[in-house]
Amino acid sequence: MTAPAPSASPALRRSAELERQIAQDPGRFRVLTGDRPTGALHLGHYFGTLHNRVRLQDLGVEVFVLIADYQVLTDRDVADRLTEHVEGLLLDYLAIGIDPARSTVFNHSAVPALNQLLLPFLSLVSVAELGRNPTVKDEIAHSRQSSVSGLMYTYPVHQAADILFCKGNLVPVGQDQLPHLEITRTVARRFNERYGAVFPEPDALLSAAPLLLGTDAGKMSKSRGNSITLAASEDETARLIKGATTDAERHITYDPAARPGVSSLVLLAALCLDRDPHEVAEEIGSGGAAVLKRTVTDAVNARMAPIRARRAEYAQDMRYVRGVLRDGNERANAIAEATLDEVRRAMGMIR
Amino acid sequence: MTAPAPSASPALRRSAELERQIAQDPGRFRVLTGDRPTGALHLGHYFGTLHNRVRLQDLGVEVFVLIADYQVLTDRDVADRLTEHVEGLLLDYLAIGIDPARSTVFNHSAVPALNQLLLPFLSLVSVAELGRNPTVKDEIAHSRQSSVSGLMYTYPVHQAADILFCKGNLVPVGQDQLPHLEITRTVARRFNERYGAVFPEPDALLSAAPLLLGTDAGKMSKSRGNSITLAASEDETARLIKGATTDAERHITYDPAARPGVSSLVLLAALCLDRDPHEVAEEIGSGGAAVLKRTVTDAVNARMAPIRARRAEYAQDMRYVRGVLRDGNERANAIAEATLDEVRRAMGMIR
Repeated sequence: MTAPAPSASPALRRSAELERQIAQDPGRFRVLTGDRPTGALHLGHYFGTLHNRVRLQDLGVEVFVLIADYQVLTDRDVADRLTEHVEGLLLDYLAIGIDPARSTVFNHSAVPALNQLLLPFLSLVSVAELGRNPTVKDEIAHSRQSSVSGLMYTYPVHQAADILFCKGNLVPVGQDQLPHLEITRTVARRFNERYGAVFPEPDALLSAAPLLLGTDAGKMSKSRGNSITLAASEDETARLIKGATTDAERHITYDPAARPGVSSLVLLAALCLDRDPHEVAEEIGSGGAAVLKRTVTDAVNARMAPIRARRAEYAQDMRYVRGVLRDGNERANAIAEATLDEVRRAMGMIR
Repeated sequence: MTAPAPSASPALRRSAELERQIAQDPGRFRVLTGDRPTGALHLGHYFGTLHNRVRLQDLGVEVFVLIADYQVLTDRDVADRLTEHVEGLLLDYLAIGIDPARSTVFNHSAVPALNQLLLPFLSLVSVAELGRNPTVKDEIAHSRQSSVSGLMYTYPVHQAADILFCKGNLVPVGQDQLPHLEITRTVARRFNERYGAVFPEPDALLSAAPLLLGTDAGKMSKSRGNSITLAASEDETARLIKGATTDAERHITYDPAARPGVSSLVLLAALCLDRDPHEVAEEIGSGGAAVLKRTVTDAVNARMAPIRARRAEYAQDMRYVRGVLRDGNERANAIAEATLDEVRRAMGMIR
């Protein structure tokens, strides 16, 4: 990571400082990240967050990966094909290099002591604060439901429980998730003020997630069929990229504002090749969309080949894969129960 | 219980029907009741709800008594002297005749699987429904806090978890708590519709709680020092009743609307003596406030004497008393874990 410009936001500058600390002493950090099991993970997820989790794990940071099964219900009535989606996530995690010996993969519904933390935490946050959260407001606007559920409304507090149950002190987030983390920090601070120091106030690790669009040049989304999943075959990948939206100008350039479709393809190739997108665009130049698409297809398939091979291998041994979740849940439960005990003691609750 | 008038509300007529069913087949019913550990229980509680719990238990209904320790925080920042209050409740329960061999006494914070039910249940209720609840509105108006906490806002859903974790099908409530129970019924119905039949839709057992005022003729309240606690000594009882508000009219009558202070004292004596308040008033007649107060004092102290004696005895053996809670929590956890397993299976959640 290069140093941020002096004009960078305080959050970005803080993240650069945290990266220096991680490099020096990774053992000090515990990271909580996760996904809702609503469908297959795609390249947007990979370059946005998944890759970063493995990087942090491999630096020696302790990583917790949460499969947020209850949170599927924040914006839809029923969780469809939940088992399939959970198993898909497990395969994706293992395929990209999440190592169950070093990282803990668990799911919400399996860790009651974590979920119980929602109760004391709800007492620390006002309804006004919940209603003000801009991310919740935005997610409510995009919800598939006609009314806002209590689960949607309280989910930043549930997220505080996710992060604080394992005393996570580092949370990789995008800019838009900063308000959520602010609620977690508020919960930790208020709890400590009222009951004594139990929780860290976790830091945001801002990742400059690359803006990858879907193949229709719209927002990449599991449900729009415009994204290349980690599990896609080489042929599916080629087909999706072949159908991708470009534009009428033959000469390829990297200009995300003026040429979103073309630039997103250039960026995807650049990310897969670990190169600068301007350079990639320049090399293709007058090759036009045909060369661009071939370049992207080759780059994606080459980058994903070892991941897809490992994924296929793990898929042959679902017993092992499910065992990874079971072991992770066991570990998460032990940690959650210890934290809950500490919380009950601090609050003066007897049993 | 006498038959309700033909003009009685549907809820009252339903309760009379339920009482008939309880008398015939008490084993069909499971009752959930409870208290917040915010202070000592008083005669208002005794004649309002405690006595009824023991009655139901002794009829053969399975009774669960919840000490709602988290819910202390709905209207105040910190739970004061929680251990003392919880132990006080345990002593009160044992003293009035709650039998740990037949009834289960447990506390919220000790039963994670119960608390986890809050999450799926929150997905079944909209924020608009939470905001509309008249009891919550009223309790918000009387809260000691400057803002409404998330815990206050969501507490009818938490209450649904309390009732449904043990598949309680009967909830003794006052008229003002009917909207809460309606939320529990809604949660049970929606869960069953979406995921298959798991929960009963519990019935309200309306108890015509007598309107006992405090000794200052205001609302009886733990915090106003105007109530006679179960644990009060005979002297304290006499002193409190001696200082009670009466009025300038010498002749004693039972007329709650026109003479609230005098009538509440008459009612208290009548309840303790299992007599009709009009008769009690007539007997005192021109004896005036002095005879009234002596009658009340004697009646309360006589009625409470065996309860207070048992309470003092149990207080000599706090090891046993705490064991009652521990055993109740163990039983509540076993039931909560079985219900949570059923809920997770119905929702398709794997571990």
